[in-house]
Amino acid sequence: MTAYDDLMAFQRDTEALGQIAGRLGWDQETVMPRGAVEQRGEEMAAIEGVLHARRTDPRIGEWLAGAEPTDDVARANLREIRRSYDRNTKVPAALASELARTTSVAQGIWAEARAADDWATFAPVLANVVRLRREEGAALADGGDTYNALLQDYEPGATAAEIEAMFAELRTGLVALRERVLGAGDPPAKLDRAFDDAGQMALSAELAKTFGYHMLHGRIDKAVHPFSSGSGLDVRITTRTVPHDPFNCFYSTIHEVGHAAYEQGVDRAYLLTPLGRGASMGVHESQSRIYENQIGRSRAFTGYLYNRMIATFGDFGVTDEEAFYRTVNAVRPGYIRTEADEVHYNLHILMRFDLERALMAGDLAVADLPGAWDERFEADFGVAVDRPSHGCLQDVHWSVGLFGYFPTYTLGNVYAGCLHEALRRDLPDLDAELAEGHTAGATGWLRDNLQRHGALYEPQETIARASGQEPSVAPLLAYLDAKFGDLYGD
Amino acid sequence: MTAYDDLMAFQRDTEALGQIAGRLGWDQETVMPRGAVEQRGEEMAAIEGVLHARRTDPRIGEWLAGAEPTDDVARANLREIRRSYDRNTKVPAALASELARTTSVAQGIWAEARAADDWATFAPVLANVVRLRREEGAALADGGDTYNALLQDYEPGATAAEIEAMFAELRTGLVALRERVLGAGDPPAKLDRAFDDAGQMALSAELAKTFGYHMLHGRIDKAVHPFSSGSGLDVRITTRTVPHDPFNCFYSTIHEVGHAAYEQGVDRAYLLTPLGRGASMGVHESQSRIYENQIGRSRAFTGYLYNRMIATFGDFGVTDEEAFYRTVNAVRPGYIRTEADEVHYNLHILMRFDLERALMAGDLAVADLPGAWDERFEADFGVAVDRPSHGCLQDVHWSVGLFGYFPTYTLGNVYAGCLHEALRRDLPDLDAELAEGHTAGATGWLRDNLQRHGALYEPQETIARASGQEPSVAPLLAYLDAKFGDLYGD
Repeated sequence: MTAYDDLMAFQRDTEALGQIAGRLGWDQETVMPRGAVEQRGEEMAAIEGVLHARRTDPRIGEWLAGAEPTDDVARANLREIRRSYDRNTKVPAALASELARTTSVAQGIWAEARAADDWATFAPVLANVVRLRREEGAALADGGDTYNALLQDYEPGATAAEIEAMFAELRTGLVALRERVLGAGDPPAKLDRAFDDAGQMALSAELAKTFGYHMLHGRIDKAVHPFSSGSGLDVRITTRTVPHDPFNCFYSTIHEVGHAAYEQGVDRAYLLTPLGRGASMGVHESQSRIYENQIGRSRAFTGYLYNRMIATFGDFGVTDEEAFYRTVNAVRPGYIRTEADEVHYNLHILMRFDLERALMAGDLAVADLPGAWDERFEADFGVAVDRPSHGCLQDVHWSVGLFGYFPTYTLGNVYAGCLHEALRRDLPDLDAELAEGHTAGATGWLRDNLQRHGALYEPQETIARASGQEPSVAPLLAYLDAKFGDLYGD
Repeated sequence: MTAYDDLMAFQRDTEALGQIAGRLGWDQETVMPRGAVEQRGEEMAAIEGVLHARRTDPRIGEWLAGAEPTDDVARANLREIRRSYDRNTKVPAALASELARTTSVAQGIWAEARAADDWATFAPVLANVVRLRREEGAALADGGDTYNALLQDYEPGATAAEIEAMFAELRTGLVALRERVLGAGDPPAKLDRAFDDAGQMALSAELAKTFGYHMLHGRIDKAVHPFSSGSGLDVRITTRTVPHDPFNCFYSTIHEVGHAAYEQGVDRAYLLTPLGRGASMGVHESQSRIYENQIGRSRAFTGYLYNRMIATFGDFGVTDEEAFYRTVNAVRPGYIRTEADEVHYNLHILMRFDLERALMAGDLAVADLPGAWDERFEADFGVAVDRPSHGCLQDVHWSVGLFGYFPTYTLGNVYAGCLHEALRRDLPDLDAELAEGHTAGATGWLRDNLQRHGALYEPQETIARASGQEPSVAPLLAYLDAKFGDLYGD
């Protein structure tokens, strides 16, 4: 046994334990008895303690020093293990456990504060989380930029400066597109009837299969918030049903199938290794978004979906495929990020990115956050925020300390734009296939060019290899301009 | 922090991790995607490895040496932790892992062999398991009796000699009762129609609630084999449905509710400590059996159940409550332990106890097991075994090395007999309550006198305190003689 072999054997058990911790999360959101919360908290703390001890085990340092990689796979495994080991050993244990304790309480307080539109109660709690994460970022940054250091947890290799430049270009384009679209008149009406739960779930399961989700290695359940959970041979998704909004169910399912198909599509040789999962949050989001938007909301695919909905629910008041395409792609300003259309979505992210950088830099105090939020929102969306739950209280992320996470949503959309451009170039008959409900060409292209590699390549290289170009915002903007210019041409 | 505090803090995480491992088992039998088996095997091995390392951690020895208990609870915690530590450190690591590997493969081979009625394929595998368990038993016995040492895993404090004497008395009584009952003529006919799945599950859930199972801390799912899983605030049960045999569903549910209510009923102060679970397999089985048989198959309760079944399924061909009571309590000889009635059940166990003691003592070779089994079966049941799957291939236990487990089933019935006698003495109006479907008197008595103590007392003391007498077979035999003498009186 070489040092590398010893390290990988140790890592394999750590990966397996990580999968178990993830599955406990799935259990909690889907099937756990309500009264088990307190005990579950202790169970989660116990397994997180085991994982933390393993991730900071001093033997890892020794093995890393002695390991000699003989191929690209070994080099990538060592890169990922070293990244995790450095990250986990840099943060003092006392700070790590104070952060865990603080954020677990903060999330509950946030949920109550949002429900009650009560910023004042949440503010001191958030201030505490901000303070601790800044401290953690400083420990990770070794004198460098705090925000940049935090960003590495979600998008390794990305820099705040690069993202800032990318997002500035994107913002200019999106604001212009938004004005053009909104100036073209009112969007089509929303659906005006209830769609039964069983029909939504049945069609949801059919869509998951259509998009290549393998039920042999997964399952679909209902949860309050849709998510995908697990890697390798056990990747589960959740969705939800809203009686008057079946698109919520269908597009949540397709979105999560994008995440899950990525995990299911990774080369089996990487099972329970650091490469056996998505390359980053941004690359993950590129898969969920391209499934959901560029494919799922395309004119061709919505034509197919329209007919499946008619077959499932009967006439639901939309006259034809073209009207349905417009309904699915209605553009409306709104306060809530998670309900935003393709034109508005990234504007929500861009403002969060700027605000959270300011919070981490110490340039914005938590007390001044609502004011800064509302000012920026009015500038970009043209409307005043009417209450905190429609403003800076709407997202869970900051309450649990996820600073550096938001930009990966837009990076995912940017990446999806690049991938989509390449996909269209390589598959000239794609629309004809999608119109028949065949996504195998598109999903197969993504599996072959991206998903199967897991975390073998760094995120940006993963996208560059698959799309044949360095990531840039141009393809996304071109796609949005073409799609919404066509839909809402003046 | 004293040594005792340190030990208990360490133990608390071990208990939490044990709960997680148990829940993975639940997941595998209920909701796991079929294609996840291979990955799950690695996950289970990883968490079992963590648990084994914790249970043999040398610090436990030091803490045990330094701990000074100040009350009965602390003394009982130390007793349980010392028992586990001694047990786990006595077995060489190489033997423990060979046993784990061998039995995990053996179970699959057993399942295929049973399905194919193929003793020859299974025999060498079983011989290997027997060899390893004898070796483990010898390591645990320190020169004492091997079987006795293995028994301690399931029924601490019990001895094979005591059980042998008890079972000899029981066998005499059961053989006599059996001849009396079978001589009295044919049992009532079986049910002769299908009962729909939804109705069975709905009535099953109602019965679980009726018997005091808390859904706030549990859930009911379907599985191939009914079981109860978990302790404390998250105790889940499974059941199954068979179209023409609704009693399979209802009495499986009531049986598992007995196990689950015991776990749910333990004093909350013992949560995630060694006392926060049932005292032994035998005491556990006393709860499942008294719920299922002495209460659930009583004339009073079956009268209630009859009317609930009429309400759920309509007329199903049984004319009245008395005919229903006879149908539920039909006595029929049969090959299969798990399908046996109250008169025959323990005869199945008694023969397994004698055979497995002979296997562990080296007095019976695995090659001679089928002959020995068939000879004993014909002696006790008066029928020749027609195929291995009806004989010594029927149970999973030996394939996974569970030698010493079988007698706890009959001990459970013996204990249930003792508890039932005391329960009837303390609750003179019990039948009137049961006839109305009120089990709160009986289940409350069991919770107050037994369940709440968890593993505070040793198994035999647990029964003696609750029933007011040292465990003996007399109450069980008296109960069976009275019940079946009345039903099948000559």
